[in-house]
Amino acid sequence: MRPALPGFREFYPPECALRNAIFATFRRVVRRFGFEEFDGPTLEPLELFTDKSGPEIASQLFHFADRGGRAVALRPEMTPTLARMVGARAAGLRRPIRWSNVGEAFRYERPQKGRLRSFYQMNADLLGEEDAAADGELVVLLLSILEEFGLTVNDFYLRVSDRQLWSLFLGSFGLADSAIGQVLSAIDKVEREGEEETKKKLGEIFHGNVAQLWAGIAALRSCNGTDDLRKFFSSTSLREATEKRLTDWDRLLECVASAGFSAHVAVDMTVVRGLAYYTGFVFEAFERGEKGRALAGGGRYDDLVEKLSGTPLAATGFAIGDVTLANLLVEKGLISDTSQQPIAFVLMEDAVRQAGLALVHGLRKKDLSVLWDLADNRSLARQMGRADRSGAAFALSIGVEEVAGDFVTVRSMASGAVERVARAEVGDWLARHGAVRLSPSLPSSSSS
Amino acid sequence: MRPALPGFREFYPPECALRNAIFATFRRVVRRFGFEEFDGPTLEPLELFTDKSGPEIASQLFHFADRGGRAVALRPEMTPTLARMVGARAAGLRRPIRWSNVGEAFRYERPQKGRLRSFYQMNADLLGEEDAAADGELVVLLLSILEEFGLTVNDFYLRVSDRQLWSLFLGSFGLADSAIGQVLSAIDKVEREGEEETKKKLGEIFHGNVAQLWAGIAALRSCNGTDDLRKFFSSTSLREATEKRLTDWDRLLECVASAGFSAHVAVDMTVVRGLAYYTGFVFEAFERGEKGRALAGGGRYDDLVEKLSGTPLAATGFAIGDVTLANLLVEKGLISDTSQQPIAFVLMEDAVRQAGLALVHGLRKKDLSVLWDLADNRSLARQMGRADRSGAAFALSIGVEEVAGDFVTVRSMASGAVERVARAEVGDWLARHGAVRLSPSLPSSSSS
Repeated sequence: MRPALPGFREFYPPECALRNAIFATFRRVVRRFGFEEFDGPTLEPLELFTDKSGPEIASQLFHFADRGGRAVALRPEMTPTLARMVGARAAGLRRPIRWSNVGEAFRYERPQKGRLRSFYQMNADLLGEEDAAADGELVVLLLSILEEFGLTVNDFYLRVSDRQLWSLFLGSFGLADSAIGQVLSAIDKVEREGEEETKKKLGEIFHGNVAQLWAGIAALRSCNGTDDLRKFFSSTSLREATEKRLTDWDRLLECVASAGFSAHVAVDMTVVRGLAYYTGFVFEAFERGEKGRALAGGGRYDDLVEKLSGTPLAATGFAIGDVTLANLLVEKGLISDTSQQPIAFVLMEDAVRQAGLALVHGLRKKDLSVLWDLADNRSLARQMGRADRSGAAFALSIGVEEVAGDFVTVRSMASGAVERVARAEVGDWLARHGAVRLSPSLPSSSSS
Repeated sequence: MRPALPGFREFYPPECALRNAIFATFRRVVRRFGFEEFDGPTLEPLELFTDKSGPEIASQLFHFADRGGRAVALRPEMTPTLARMVGARAAGLRRPIRWSNVGEAFRYERPQKGRLRSFYQMNADLLGEEDAAADGELVVLLLSILEEFGLTVNDFYLRVSDRQLWSLFLGSFGLADSAIGQVLSAIDKVEREGEEETKKKLGEIFHGNVAQLWAGIAALRSCNGTDDLRKFFSSTSLREATEKRLTDWDRLLECVASAGFSAHVAVDMTVVRGLAYYTGFVFEAFERGEKGRALAGGGRYDDLVEKLSGTPLAATGFAIGDVTLANLLVEKGLISDTSQQPIAFVLMEDAVRQAGLALVHGLRKKDLSVLWDLADNRSLARQMGRADRSGAAFALSIGVEEVAGDFVTVRSMASGAVERVARAEVGDWLARHGAVRLSPSLPSSSSS
């Protein structure tokens, strides 16, 4: 026996049903926002990912040389593929482009709870629209997805921040773009690495007054709303430069408020997100409580599509993974085994086997889930045993008597109640009773 | 720009919608037959596949050493993963086990039409039931899937053969099991390689009278039904030994007949299927006509689960790929771009933006697909231009007048007809009109 590789999952039917239910919810909600699903290759040229993230990303990927000598990698994310695809047909695609994907991604990292080597993600990206309302639309979409699963404001929240304001602020210290990226990377880690370590790093990047820079960073990190931000910038030389941006903030938050999500969203400038390609609003959703695990994240990346495809295109997007989300939904009791039992099991006397099989097939043609005992020449009692173990809601018996009388004997497996239903009407009868098949007794109003 | 690798597909929204529609049909039909979906890792230990198919299979796989030094491969098929999973939990799974999967598989082969390096397959497997009715059930399932797509007896047919009869027959010449496998492999290629080449091969395997063996093979290959088979074996020493097997044939064909598929199925002993692990009935579905491309194939493999997992378990199954099937459905006009347009585009005056956004979100909460113009402060005329290009069925306008009167102005994009609908009723109105949104005029009966 060759066990599955570490960090890869086997989905037995209950787990597969749960996973598919999550995918179905993703797809239902993005559809409401007018998103169309796309997909791309699972295996891509390695350079597609190193172009975006630098050669060091290779150490976190499953990559190899294929038999044709190409350097290839299992995709760790969808964004580079998305950028290539929209870039290649940008002229022909209706703007703004709203694309989503539900797909598998791979990372070579140490397997642990919530961090697997294979996972699924839903991506939603909105391209070709620079307005802050596009960011607002995506934030509302993400909140709507989490709400659709039954999660409430007590279960999760979303933090929004802004790399544009951060860049304006750091630029006012005379820092160049590359240095700004380094500083933001240091700020991203301040909670893990501590104030002293961060200041030390800042000293290596910034050759001015580090204490003053740090004081400014700390003050901006403590801003918790647009009032704070307006106040913060009004006392700096950036008051006019940030004015337009603060109306963008109003616009994003108006989208959130109009959708009834104000209580779910916190302005939190401590969020910068480590990835260098974000250019504007960034956001992350977390579960509330002790664990505080990250559920989803995203932001605006207006330069990336041009970098990867040559076609300039404003873009904003987010990804939500299946692993942490599924754990949370199970813990909260919001999702359970969604696999369906068959509605009927057909028992047949051997003498009328053809009529029995015709009944089975006729019901399946009506989109009903129907089983029968495949083993030859079993007694009706043994067939009933199998019907019982199958989880079917109803046992349908057909024998010489039933064929002569053109009816089927229907037994509720839950209550044991038995009634006769005309053969031609069994399908409709089951369709009517399918929704109540777990009720303790058969409704009497619908008997034939 | 890094193009996609050869043999890998990009699914733009129309192609993705088509693919997903095929998947949905697969899932709908297998559900009727009581199958449950499972899934396994995309990446597996290489030995999982070489254990099954021999070391030479590696040359057809994407395989490599991962960063931990493990020999790994992208799965070329689901059966070995299935065998491991059912083997590991065989005692706890309800028999017979009916499992299906829709997933991606990978083969390193020369890309050409219908032969890609990445493709999707639906697998359906029925385990723990030796009776020929299980084979019959699977044949009927495969035929039901093809029929569900709208394909008829004029479009496709299914050929059934039997490796058990072949083995009995070849065994009567004194051939050992391994030699029988070699002979069947030669028979599988007879149409490609010709009679002379095949006879030469037979001479290398069989040291008796090759002309007599070939005559027998040719006679068995020409059997086109159970009457032929009974006649063929009645004149041999195998009459009694094959009697039970021919009742299995009756049983399989009874399933087919009862489901109304007799005209779709041909008994055809020229089919042996090249794969050595088949142990009983084997079948293949083909499109009719000149091209005659294979659509699906499968058969019984009673020894494989034990070989791969250590747990003996009878099994029969088939796989149907997406590539040839999609080509056929498109050629026959049975499937087209199934992507959906949004039902509504909301136009709002800037002064009542909050009410406009609340309308958007309220409609989305009712599971309607709704867009709005994300760009700031656009004139209503420009918003209408965007609504027009969006493909939405209705434009909903909300301005100062509408808010004061608590209504929404609804315009059919197809007919230009305009009416006022109460704000609270717009969702229900759209849900009612969604199905008829392409009709040339608005029904008048439902106005508010």
